[in-house]
Amino acid sequence: MKNLVKGNQLYEGKAKKVYATSNPELLIVDYKDDATAFNGEKKGTIHNKGIINNLVTNHMMQLLEKEGVPTHFVEEISERETIVKNVTIIPLEVIVRNIIAGSLSKRVGKPEGTKMNKTVLEFCYKDDELGDPMVNEYHITAMGWATKEEVDTLAEYSFMVNKFMTNYLKDLNIELIDFKLEFGKTSDGIIVLADEISPDTCRFWDSVTGEKLDKDRFRRNMGGEEDAYNEILKRLMGKTI
Amino acid sequence: MKNLVKGNQLYEGKAKKVYATSNPELLIVDYKDDATAFNGEKKGTIHNKGIINNLVTNHMMQLLEKEGVPTHFVEEISERETIVKNVTIIPLEVIVRNIIAGSLSKRVGKPEGTKMNKTVLEFCYKDDELGDPMVNEYHITAMGWATKEEVDTLAEYSFMVNKFMTNYLKDLNIELIDFKLEFGKTSDGIIVLADEISPDTCRFWDSVTGEKLDKDRFRRNMGGEEDAYNEILKRLMGKTI
Repeated sequence: MKNLVKGNQLYEGKAKKVYATSNPELLIVDYKDDATAFNGEKKGTIHNKGIINNLVTNHMMQLLEKEGVPTHFVEEISERETIVKNVTIIPLEVIVRNIIAGSLSKRVGKPEGTKMNKTVLEFCYKDDELGDPMVNEYHITAMGWATKEEVDTLAEYSFMVNKFMTNYLKDLNIELIDFKLEFGKTSDGIIVLADEISPDTCRFWDSVTGEKLDKDRFRRNMGGEEDAYNEILKRLMGKTI
Repeated sequence: MKNLVKGNQLYEGKAKKVYATSNPELLIVDYKDDATAFNGEKKGTIHNKGIINNLVTNHMMQLLEKEGVPTHFVEEISERETIVKNVTIIPLEVIVRNIIAGSLSKRVGKPEGTKMNKTVLEFCYKDDELGDPMVNEYHITAMGWATKEEVDTLAEYSFMVNKFMTNYLKDLNIELIDFKLEFGKTSDGIIVLADEISPDTCRFWDSVTGEKLDKDRFRRNMGGEEDAYNEILKRLMGKTI
């Protein structure tokens, strides 16, 4: 994007830095290799993760735009940096679950890998101090985190993302177990998909071997996280780094 | 009820025993003085609690029936024993919250006593081993614990109970902070309010002084639980024991 000047760092998150730009409607995100898990308790680095997550996220966001899901994506400007719309993040994580894994396995006492007869959505309130607690629509509307209509929009978009990604990944022999989405509102009130879609935020299992190709390798000290992230990049974009 | 014979004990819960009867459609519940908290971790006794909870529950259930909420109540047969319909318990607790307290205070990081601009419902899956985890409608329907229509019925009845009880108790200078309901299905598939409505399952605060008149006195080692339970009995039924 011509003439856009990178400004001050506004925020440094666990996996990304965010910068102001000369256009108040736009930001630049800069993906780091830092990896954290369990609300920051476990810390580490996954070599080149920032590059892979930037590429994978932008690839998926552009495909989703074509599917009718508005996103914050504007333009990739380097291997780690992308221009995105400056949105006000809605303080909710939407978790979409096709197969039982992770915290749902503990919550309902069913083994990981258990199939469900329908897709499950969960909402978590984004608050590190509170540990991103699971909340429901009553909490969300009573606390004023979002309106009923906004929650319905988040659910609708999340199901659209799930439907598209599940089919898209199936052809690449990747099973989409679950994933986390975040949304934001542009200055004119449009809700768009924000944050990232990557092996940090999705559980990807190899459809044939069941091998984990996502951040669980890091969370669970399984090793091979670099290879797993690269394998996702390879299947999605035909290249490795 | 003439000719009804008390049969074998079917089940002993934390606060009640349940007996079969000579009529397969009916059970007898027998309220104990045993008090537990934190999923059974804290144990104790509240003198005469069983009597008070039996009387208070039956008083409320009969009022609610008149308000159009079907209940499992049939007939009080002694100070601790009541005949109820033999229902299959739906494995969900419905928590109705008017004012922030207890686990909601921790979940959303707001002090106890914080008012909300609307009533909040929560569903928990009844499973002691899992710690009665909070779940949402997606979990409930995906796991087959209840259908969407049943969840809607539980919500509708819970709001009816809340509306009636809040107003009824207000006249007795009791503020209804939150409470837990359970529901069951009769052999012909009718959903009815089951379990109990008592200081064990509701948070009651004196409207004037804010004094706690419920099981929080036991949970939090505040003392005075016997007097608190008796105070509720007195305000509802004009007597103490």
